[in-house]
Amino acid sequence: MKPRPFPLVLGHEGAGVVESVGPGVTKVSIGDKVIPLFLPQCGQCERCQSPKTNLCTKNWEKTQQGVLADGTSRITCKNQQVHQFIGISTFSEYTVVPEDNVTKIHPDAPLDRVCLLGCGVSTGYGAAVNTGKVESGSTCAVFGLGAVGLAAVMGCKAAGASRIIAVDINSDKFEIGKTFGATEFVNPKDHSKSIQEVLRELTNGGVDYALECVGDVAVMRAAVEACSPAGGVCVIVGWIEVEELSLAPLDILLGRTLKGTYFGGWKSVEAVPRLVQDYLSRKILLDEFVTHRLALDQINQAFDLIMSGKSIRTVIEM
Amino acid sequence: MKPRPFPLVLGHEGAGVVESVGPGVTKVSIGDKVIPLFLPQCGQCERCQSPKTNLCTKNWEKTQQGVLADGTSRITCKNQQVHQFIGISTFSEYTVVPEDNVTKIHPDAPLDRVCLLGCGVSTGYGAAVNTGKVESGSTCAVFGLGAVGLAAVMGCKAAGASRIIAVDINSDKFEIGKTFGATEFVNPKDHSKSIQEVLRELTNGGVDYALECVGDVAVMRAAVEACSPAGGVCVIVGWIEVEELSLAPLDILLGRTLKGTYFGGWKSVEAVPRLVQDYLSRKILLDEFVTHRLALDQINQAFDLIMSGKSIRTVIEM
Repeated sequence: MKPRPFPLVLGHEGAGVVESVGPGVTKVSIGDKVIPLFLPQCGQCERCQSPKTNLCTKNWEKTQQGVLADGTSRITCKNQQVHQFIGISTFSEYTVVPEDNVTKIHPDAPLDRVCLLGCGVSTGYGAAVNTGKVESGSTCAVFGLGAVGLAAVMGCKAAGASRIIAVDINSDKFEIGKTFGATEFVNPKDHSKSIQEVLRELTNGGVDYALECVGDVAVMRAAVEACSPAGGVCVIVGWIEVEELSLAPLDILLGRTLKGTYFGGWKSVEAVPRLVQDYLSRKILLDEFVTHRLALDQINQAFDLIMSGKSIRTVIEM
Repeated sequence: MKPRPFPLVLGHEGAGVVESVGPGVTKVSIGDKVIPLFLPQCGQCERCQSPKTNLCTKNWEKTQQGVLADGTSRITCKNQQVHQFIGISTFSEYTVVPEDNVTKIHPDAPLDRVCLLGCGVSTGYGAAVNTGKVESGSTCAVFGLGAVGLAAVMGCKAAGASRIIAVDINSDKFEIGKTFGATEFVNPKDHSKSIQEVLRELTNGGVDYALECVGDVAVMRAAVEACSPAGGVCVIVGWIEVEELSLAPLDILLGRTLKGTYFGGWKSVEAVPRLVQDYLSRKILLDEFVTHRLALDQINQAFDLIMSGKSIRTVIEM
């Protein structure tokens, strides 16, 4: 990511309970269980009314700048204003968000599991079912078996894919990949050929869908090139702001499609409560992503775990 | 393009009459009017049977190498083998093609007009109606007003687009652009801002569909960036083999789609005769593309005309 305003309270994949509401707030009440949303859904703007996008324009610029609609954050420390990360800041016991940046969820939802729906799991799952529109019987490749990639695997399975090839440079991830529905595993380090060549050979010329869940431009290119030139769809899911993606035009021209997904294409306020219901009715998995639990003051340990590939998600207990 | 085998007879947008057939040929007969197809449609291969692609695999490699299925061309000059350009070579009074690389057309079709359906017009028109799937009421931008771009404009109009913004650095092209359905014109040279900024300002944030009909990687990038980030679709149509397209991943990630088209997505053998019928019933224009007519020995003059932007298509009369 490009540098963000500093100081800043990080965190954007959380869940909580409404402690109080400001004047004019009608959509949530004190005591409601909620998930804060970095992507709002105001329901009023042109984009909210279009079926083609989930990019609500409400407070977009301000949210990206780490402040709320009035240009301030609601967090201070020693009289200094502290910015809110993409309008939320969930590495905190309390935060303040506009009402369009929060959604009420089922009261039975366990906060320490449904918090994952605040970003990664919704994004990866939606990348497959909404953006890629993975078809039944298709062959998919998912690059990167973090929470986003595992959720993408789960989405491919839900869509009825016949082959789901999981790709990671850490073979330790393959066991958990099976839990979510991966049928095959490839570690690029086990091959002298490029991963795109390996995948094309495995799939008679290329996969139907490739989902990049890493956020690396070289992996994005590999994902494009791993697709079938005859109608393959590559969805980039991983986030990267500072490097450029380079492609050979012919790799697109002959018939591949390149798409991207932001929050899995879900319209946030209406979709997240449905995903919570899908978890409660066991249509999607969440428990299996949570490999560790730590207290807020151990959060740097949580980052070490994820950077070293030892965790999928560490839930921070407040 | 990358260098091709040499010597070579160029030409791939032609029409003619079957002079003779080899043993086993059943699909065309002596005297049939036909259009030679650089993209075959065998009807048998996996891709021919998929609705997602027109990339028939029959003799693909050989065709790209400038030879027919048996590894030879059928043109010689002073005892030296001369290659056939993408399996066809139409800058010639006679050529030899496999039967899957030719399609029989209506006997009333004027060869000096329907020849255009052998590549450029079919490609541009199909880029809009097949690949982009331009929707009624949408806003489109077409980059480059050569025959391919004008055909893309015609496709956008046929699909019911409300605004069709034609972009060219040669304002002389705008008059003919109107003939095909363009509603607005922008010459990037008239603006100090980038063309993508100009188009985003003209369209409240970006066009629904951008069609790149130039074959230039900078224009391809501009076309991507001119699309609405919230669901815009960019189709690259222009051909370029030697440079790379560079993009900011976020420009895709937030919700744009990048697609490519090869021969407009048409399955060649079955679609080209239908396009000929569409011309005969005045559903598509062809006459208006033909700005010049020259004899084969004046062909270098035809290239000068197209390079200088003075012609749209020069028909070479045999």
